[in-house]
Amino acid sequence: MLLARTLPLLLLAGCATFDPAPEKSHILKVLTDQAEAWNRGDLEKFLDGYWRSEHTVFAGGGDVHRGFDAMAARYRKSYGTPEKMGKLTFANLSFESVERDRAVVTGSWELQRATDKPGGVFTLIFRKLPEGWRIVHDHTSSR
Amino acid sequence: MLLARTLPLLLLAGCATFDPAPEKSHILKVLTDQAEAWNRGDLEKFLDGYWRSEHTVFAGGGDVHRGFDAMAARYRKSYGTPEKMGKLTFANLSFESVERDRAVVTGSWELQRATDKPGGVFTLIFRKLPEGWRIVHDHTSSR
Repeated sequence: MLLARTLPLLLLAGCATFDPAPEKSHILKVLTDQAEAWNRGDLEKFLDGYWRSEHTVFAGGGDVHRGFDAMAARYRKSYGTPEKMGKLTFANLSFESVERDRAVVTGSWELQRATDKPGGVFTLIFRKLPEGWRIVHDHTSSR
Repeated sequence: MLLARTLPLLLLAGCATFDPAPEKSHILKVLTDQAEAWNRGDLEKFLDGYWRSEHTVFAGGGDVHRGFDAMAARYRKSYGTPEKMGKLTFANLSFESVERDRAVVTGSWELQRATDKPGGVFTLIFRKLPEGWRIVHDHTSSR
């Protein structure tokens, strides 16, 4: 009876103490840091926003790529010079869901480059890991 | 003390009893039903795979669309005839994560139509709702 009475209270207390605001701010910082790193041509720092795991998923461009290393190699190949990187802007960021250890964020992206201006939208699944909030799944598509 | 001793056991028991296999099978059935409905030209039944909520998200084609109704309207506009619908195939389905009440599935899609063969990949976030597993977030992109 003690347990039966106390457990729901404990669970309620657990829920009541969750405040998404600081988590949102940590997640936004990851994205801001990514954009800033990109815009000073520092692709390796940009990649720090992702979970360094073989389970990290990048979907887009007609394929699903698995593993941080494969994703990083693809980024290095596609964006190996400052000209290819251009200037990155994120916009319309929206938290679709924020929980204790996971979040889903959508937004739009645009690259300003000398010869073109590619852009589109993304869905990012974040997990809160010991090292902080990291992107574990990125689906990025072009308009 | 009773609580302190019993709670971890309860939590462990809760984890130990979760078997993802039946959940995967329910989720696959949602996708199979969707493809079958599409391929007999029944767009309304296809849409049954989605959460009927204003919070349902469809990302792709350069935009993020919110709400089941807006998404359904977009499907009806783009795929209003059997010729536009064509024959849908899902392939390379992969469960990126399966938990008690949520799952992430990736895969590729292709439409066989008289004049073209569009295709690409998708990321689907499922939630287990009272009505069953439903897609709450769909990011679909073209190759």
